[in-house]
Amino acid sequence: MEKQNRSGTAGKVIRCKAAVCRNPGEPLVIEEIMVDPPKAWEIRIKILCTSLCHSDVTFWKISIGPFALFPRIFGHEAVGVVESVGEHVEEFQEGDMVVPVFRPNCRECRDCKSQKGNGCSIFGDKLVAEMPRDGTSRFKGMNGETLHHFLSVSSFSEYTVVDVVHVVKISSEFPAEKACLLSCGVSSGIGAAWKVADIEEGSTVAIFGLGAVGLAVAEGARLRGASKIIGVDLNQEKFEIGKKFGVSEFINPATCGEKKVIKEITDGGVDYSFECIGLASLMEEAFNSSRANWGKTVILGVEMHNTPLAINTYFLLRGRTVTGCFFGGLKAKSDIPILAQKYLHKEINLDGFITHEVNFQDINKAFDLLLEGKSLRCIIWMD
Amino acid sequence: MEKQNRSGTAGKVIRCKAAVCRNPGEPLVIEEIMVDPPKAWEIRIKILCTSLCHSDVTFWKISIGPFALFPRIFGHEAVGVVESVGEHVEEFQEGDMVVPVFRPNCRECRDCKSQKGNGCSIFGDKLVAEMPRDGTSRFKGMNGETLHHFLSVSSFSEYTVVDVVHVVKISSEFPAEKACLLSCGVSSGIGAAWKVADIEEGSTVAIFGLGAVGLAVAEGARLRGASKIIGVDLNQEKFEIGKKFGVSEFINPATCGEKKVIKEITDGGVDYSFECIGLASLMEEAFNSSRANWGKTVILGVEMHNTPLAINTYFLLRGRTVTGCFFGGLKAKSDIPILAQKYLHKEINLDGFITHEVNFQDINKAFDLLLEGKSLRCIIWMD
Repeated sequence: MEKQNRSGTAGKVIRCKAAVCRNPGEPLVIEEIMVDPPKAWEIRIKILCTSLCHSDVTFWKISIGPFALFPRIFGHEAVGVVESVGEHVEEFQEGDMVVPVFRPNCRECRDCKSQKGNGCSIFGDKLVAEMPRDGTSRFKGMNGETLHHFLSVSSFSEYTVVDVVHVVKISSEFPAEKACLLSCGVSSGIGAAWKVADIEEGSTVAIFGLGAVGLAVAEGARLRGASKIIGVDLNQEKFEIGKKFGVSEFINPATCGEKKVIKEITDGGVDYSFECIGLASLMEEAFNSSRANWGKTVILGVEMHNTPLAINTYFLLRGRTVTGCFFGGLKAKSDIPILAQKYLHKEINLDGFITHEVNFQDINKAFDLLLEGKSLRCIIWMD
Repeated sequence: MEKQNRSGTAGKVIRCKAAVCRNPGEPLVIEEIMVDPPKAWEIRIKILCTSLCHSDVTFWKISIGPFALFPRIFGHEAVGVVESVGEHVEEFQEGDMVVPVFRPNCRECRDCKSQKGNGCSIFGDKLVAEMPRDGTSRFKGMNGETLHHFLSVSSFSEYTVVDVVHVVKISSEFPAEKACLLSCGVSSGIGAAWKVADIEEGSTVAIFGLGAVGLAVAEGARLRGASKIIGVDLNQEKFEIGKKFGVSEFINPATCGEKKVIKEITDGGVDYSFECIGLASLMEEAFNSSRANWGKTVILGVEMHNTPLAINTYFLLRGRTVTGCFFGGLKAKSDIPILAQKYLHKEINLDGFITHEVNFQDINKAFDLLLEGKSLRCIIWMD
């Protein structure tokens, strides 16, 4: 039995606008599309706003191989309101404000139940797949062609369908554009600092790459009372921006060798280093800049060329550690509400991440701003 | 003012026998040598027994570069009795039973005072050096030539001089040959399992290389209640030996691909993997055999060819960790007494590691046995 919703759209195909990527690297095209109703354990969400993350850009550029799926609806950082729910859905109801998350969290598997990590052994890493349970798409073009999903979210559309394991409920009083930030990048950085590195007061930290994720690491480190937060970036402007998030020292590798400088500033290396770009060579620098005995390097960037990380094993034997995480090691369902609370209690700075806002029809401007290194997060409003 | 000791040797050069390595890879030669009295913060030890560790063999083979120092007195796993002490030494006195340790532990630097790691920021990693404070040798041949030290211990001699930061006192009632085991290999394995990996009850473990160190990891894992301890070794005989230390499954990579088998046995990978050989390719296998989300790989082996470890960064992002340690991450002064207590309380199996015993004049047999993979530890008795 279908439960009808207020707008009378439940169970019916919705026609709405989406920014469709027809070919790799090409500007998105605002098109009318058809969004199927949610199947069992799925919800259909009316997106309020979305933002552009580097992973969108990475996949948007991929032109060959299994990851090159077009036409496709990108976007995975967003907030929206539940329009209707599919069968068996009890966690959500129409009108709920929700944050979709690319990292699944079923809360029933061994991994989700564990205190460690944030993988899900049932839903895994669906980087390519359409809807996680049946592998099909809920999007069609007006000519009936299939439009592919992205990271189980596809938020560059007025409406999208997401599996319940990829959604977190959030208070409807929470500012939408701030909730959007918690959906991916900012949460990833803060999570990496808090849950994966578990930075202690007085620690020294180096962050390679001061995009939104790197600056969120800085914010996490600042809140943990790090004594030095060293930002490494080729873009000199990032130092001024970084100061707002606690970056206390800045190194531009174009003008000096960052490894040596970091060792000098910190008397032998940092306690924690983070790679937030996705380059194996930079990961190696991050590792080498960590101190012996307890230095820990956390990799957040997805390596762009699939190059392996080469590690000096003697450096490892001297007590260094390297690890990595998706989504900052956060378990979405339990950890996003904690971050949201901290924002409401004014413990976390989210506002500083929003540097630009555009309307949906100008979504390609968000791409330009990110590619030019001008924006941290550009909020894309649906209305 | 020199404090005289019972035998009247304090402050004097001692003439005694040592097994000198004159050229790389050649059998050791029992020679008469001269051992200087200890300088400030040093003690002279009468060795009771010593044993051969793989690191001795590794350095014994090196024929070029800064590590090739000959003539040299090898040996770093031992137990002895203090013959005399140098100026400022208050921690030890004549007659104390002591275990020398290659890893320094000054207890005063930031690293030694920290709960983490086991490096010493004052004394560092003196792999080449002679005595750590003044860089000179305490050994001379009868013709006056300098004989080099090894790993700050040089226990293949009836008498040796060791800095106080490299020595731990142990109860004189402790069986000498068991104390000897705590000096390096066995402690390294147990420490890696307990302090570095911190294995929990019910965990799955894979150990690459079932020498004494690998089997000590198994012993540590067994005592922590690991549910599966998978041993990987090319020597089929190691399975029977391994059972005594808790190895529950055995994989011979010569007959099957260990990575796939481990993933099958453990439903996706082990919680903890250990590399105890020193080959980058095996380290990579160990890493790849660990499970996503919380799998941790601990490197114990010193890479034989200085080849870097190549890591798939996507595997890291899925929540795996790789780290390494010297001496099992143990802080010698505080942790060796704990292990000694556990042996006395019959909580640790040390006896099983001693497979052979020889007299000092037969020290080259200990090399043969280890090189042929026949021994775990061969105790070399001085008397």
